[in-house]
Amino acid sequence: MTALLIRDCRPLGGSPADILLQDGRIAAIGAGLAAPAGAALEEGRGLLALPAFVEGHTHLDKTLWEMGWWRNEVGPRLIDRIETERAQRRVLGLDPARQGERLARAFLLRGTTRIRSHADVDTEVGTAHSDALVALRERLRGTMDIQVVAFPQSGLLVRPGTLELLDAALRNGADIVGGLDPSGIDRDPKGHLDAVFGLCARHGKPLDIHLHEPGELGAFALELIVERTQALSMQGKVVVSHAFCLGEVARAPALLDALAETGIALATTAPPSRPVPSVRAAQAAGVAIFAGNDGVRDMWTPYGMPDMLQRAMIVGMKNDLRRDDEIAIAFGMVSDAAAAACGFETCRLAPGERADLVLLEAETLAEAVVAQPPRALVISHGRVVARHGAGVA
Amino acid sequence: MTALLIRDCRPLGGSPADILLQDGRIAAIGAGLAAPAGAALEEGRGLLALPAFVEGHTHLDKTLWEMGWWRNEVGPRLIDRIETERAQRRVLGLDPARQGERLARAFLLRGTTRIRSHADVDTEVGTAHSDALVALRERLRGTMDIQVVAFPQSGLLVRPGTLELLDAALRNGADIVGGLDPSGIDRDPKGHLDAVFGLCARHGKPLDIHLHEPGELGAFALELIVERTQALSMQGKVVVSHAFCLGEVARAPALLDALAETGIALATTAPPSRPVPSVRAAQAAGVAIFAGNDGVRDMWTPYGMPDMLQRAMIVGMKNDLRRDDEIAIAFGMVSDAAAAACGFETCRLAPGERADLVLLEAETLAEAVVAQPPRALVISHGRVVARHGAGVA
Repeated sequence: MTALLIRDCRPLGGSPADILLQDGRIAAIGAGLAAPAGAALEEGRGLLALPAFVEGHTHLDKTLWEMGWWRNEVGPRLIDRIETERAQRRVLGLDPARQGERLARAFLLRGTTRIRSHADVDTEVGTAHSDALVALRERLRGTMDIQVVAFPQSGLLVRPGTLELLDAALRNGADIVGGLDPSGIDRDPKGHLDAVFGLCARHGKPLDIHLHEPGELGAFALELIVERTQALSMQGKVVVSHAFCLGEVARAPALLDALAETGIALATTAPPSRPVPSVRAAQAAGVAIFAGNDGVRDMWTPYGMPDMLQRAMIVGMKNDLRRDDEIAIAFGMVSDAAAAACGFETCRLAPGERADLVLLEAETLAEAVVAQPPRALVISHGRVVARHGAGVA
Repeated sequence: MTALLIRDCRPLGGSPADILLQDGRIAAIGAGLAAPAGAALEEGRGLLALPAFVEGHTHLDKTLWEMGWWRNEVGPRLIDRIETERAQRRVLGLDPARQGERLARAFLLRGTTRIRSHADVDTEVGTAHSDALVALRERLRGTMDIQVVAFPQSGLLVRPGTLELLDAALRNGADIVGGLDPSGIDRDPKGHLDAVFGLCARHGKPLDIHLHEPGELGAFALELIVERTQALSMQGKVVVSHAFCLGEVARAPALLDALAETGIALATTAPPSRPVPSVRAAQAAGVAIFAGNDGVRDMWTPYGMPDMLQRAMIVGMKNDLRRDDEIAIAFGMVSDAAAAACGFETCRLAPGERADLVLLEAETLAEAVVAQPPRALVISHGRVVARHGAGVA
């Protein structure tokens, strides 16, 4: 049995307490806990204690993290970005295994222990990105939980052979079926959605589909996704990522009701530059909504940090969440609400929960979100994995 | 004569160079510069060198910085925020002199040496906030440049006596006439604008008016502002802050043309939560546009950091500026473009310019904006004022 007693921290900014971790789980939280024989000790010195964070939507396989600055000269259209990336990843020698591990570890140093990552599957790289992240998932098991979405970034039906590659990626261990803009990219909404839902049915796996399509085109795709989710009884197994259309169409409330009825969740990156689903409206309708960075410093965007507190801040600013109780909602979107919607183990500061937690210098949860102070201590599965931003072997 | 030679830094991310500072100004930039006799030396170790930053729109007088976390439970309307603040500032003992200095120094530690701050003037605090910031401006002279806007936060005509207080604040040394939502708050657009432009004429001072008004109401106010700017020949002396309406009305291009013709500049905080003037559209029309935080951790908002690189990031994300050349525009909005529009001394890395600069660890300017690394060195007027985030006496 391994035990670790954290003395004198403030769980979620509440009263000072000790937290006892045993065998990778939270055994007790309270004042004046006794250390079991042989327990390691950590002095919390009044630091704020938070549950570890969840990254609900990123692309570990194609980050340029630690590869030196890449000068972005890409054109403005979606297709410019897709094509630049496909061409440049070979020129740059972008190794998805190495890059995925670099970024996953950068997330860990900043307190994230659960990541849902999309992995490009296409006719040039085949299943290599997805396979690399599946191997990374296994390598980091016991330290981080990684989910791999087999993602047809360059299109599915428009690139013959991609469907078979997605099928192979799922056989090779990818956790989730991915999809992308059934009309905007694949030019065949029915065909695309029948194909990806077909993969879900064949492999018994959930779906996470990128939907950038604007306005009524996106709303139409949402309707088709709802229909198929109902027909296949996939309630609770479908995530729509982005769904910008919900920030645009007047009938968003009815669409949110339909998503709620079919248990479809939303992943949002809360980009400041465009309309997005409203967090308040989604939650009021009963739709689960959670957050992610999207790409972090890649050929799509120079922005993004492997710090889910920063993403919670952006979600809060985007949704004009100013009150402390509202900022707590933004934090939930990078912690327990994200875990629930993605199907990760829960992450709460409570006895019985997995001992994944973060200590940092802040008075309140809201201050942690708006200021993103350095992480004094990161604990995963009851073990200290980082101190003051540096990994612990 | 005082001299400081910074060896081996990379101005704006270019080739390694030395920078020689003499008597508070940049004397030379080049490779292998000789240190004058008695010059102090700083090793740049290949760090990126940037010109110091400019905060173009904030409220130094009412920040809660370093006052402990204030739990925000404020209602959602503009008037809820104004009234909460007016009531709470007394309860909290909010001292504008102390708070202004705390926040100004926090900005300085992160590389900002020029700040335009609004200061509340109303029938409860009178001119105390404005007077406090005027005194702060004098106290920090030679280290930071501060401009004080006498700002009728609680309304002007709707609160009789405020106009006389603004007049007094200007006589007491405030630099700029402020205004606020002539219809939305003051219920009398003609009366409000005639009053504030009248103050400008009487005192020979520029104007910086907060305009939150939406859609056509805001556009109407812009028209009235253009008319008065022309009539009083105040070209180059008027800033409209926020101007959200320019992100909303279809006729924004024509309004931008009118602003360009009358030399009216725009200050934007680029809030992720609502439409804003487009940086690209403003610049294409020839309208000067620059950035600020707005309030930093006050009763209006828990967000905001005294770090203009973070604000540049938010401007970049809001305007979808992803290319390196576009991110340089966002940086300009917190450096030289802001200095020009506010009438501060220019801040560029060039011989003859004032020796206000920042060294930090980043490969490129764009990386500095997206990652906001700690400031290794901050120099103001040729003197080192901060190292690694700590002030130097």
